Amino acid sequence: MQRKTFLSMECSIARSLEELGDGWSLLILRSALLGASRFQQFQEMLDIPPTTLARRLEALCAQGLFKLRRYEERPPRDEYRLTQKGNDVLPILLAIGVWGNRWHAPRGPLFEFVDPQTGAALEPVLCDRISGRELRPGAVALKAGPGASEQLRASIRQPVVFGAREVAA
Amino acid sequence: MQRKTFLSMECSIARSLEELGDGWSLLILRSALLGASRFQQFQEMLDIPPTTLARRLEALCAQGLFKLRRYEERPPRDEYRLTQKGNDVLPILLAIGVWGNRWHAPRGPLFEFVDPQTGAALEPVLCDRISGRELRPGAVALKAGPGASEQLRASIRQPVVFGAREVAA
Repeated sequence: MQRKTFLSMECSIARSLEELGDGWSLLILRSALLGASRFQQFQEMLDIPPTTLARRLEALCAQGLFKLRRYEERPPRDEYRLTQKGNDVLPILLAIGVWGNRWHAPRGPLFEFVDPQTGAALEPVLCDRISGRELRPGAVALKAGPGASEQLRASIRQPVVFGAREVAA
Repeated sequence: MQRKTFLSMECSIARSLEELGDGWSLLILRSALLGASRFQQFQEMLDIPPTTLARRLEALCAQGLFKLRRYEERPPRDEYRLTQKGNDVLPILLAIGVWGNRWHAPRGPLFEFVDPQTGAALEPVLCDRISGRELRPGAVALKAGPGASEQLRASIRQPVVFGAREVAA
């Protein structure tokens, strides 16, 4: 990577993007969340160059999103199992899928989200767990948390509203 | 970009990542959602090389996430205003922030999410808009949508569950 690392930024989004901010890594996680666990399965689902796939899987293991599990001894073969950290990426990918269905599907959504038990259509939106209210632009603000440095704390004395109430037509 | 384009993949996530799957673009959008609109504001918030910033802003305008608006005539100066498409990125960034607060904040969350009116703590989770139920791993499945090709439709005859119910310890 030629650019500076995002890990030095004091921002949960920036630090996360250091691990996730690459298309292939998120697509590998998407495939794992859809059931892939073996090298060949990822390769078939993604049509990704094998060296790229091997490098990304290694990085995702090192970052704790996958854990190796031996499923065959002779010859030795490992599969990639999602950890809690990896499984927790699901809401990010669902949010990206919703956005893509809206903005990258001129002939209608490529996918629909359904309840696996009933088959009923689902519409994923971001809500507040406590009140159940939808978190639309303008309905959320950020303030410094317990892990913020003095510097960060000083730079945001008031909560900052997240998202524009008005957009360019 | 040296890799193949994700736009050719028949997947809303992959197509979205073609536009968003770069750390800087998402961080520029984060800054815009927090109120930045002028070149210098982005530069100050992100400490980003000016040539990189100019290139990304141009791409984000071309993709319809920002729209230029002239705010000064002499000398001519433009600001970057979020469009609906750009503003709709908010749930993605909130989902990334929640993940980062959990997995990239060893000394506690850097940020907290609060209600801008009341200051009450918010806990963003992905829910189904209709039932209000939280969409945990295993509670969502994908099926082919109206925009899917025959090929895609044939490859997923049954809904595919998204997210693992069990994870590696």
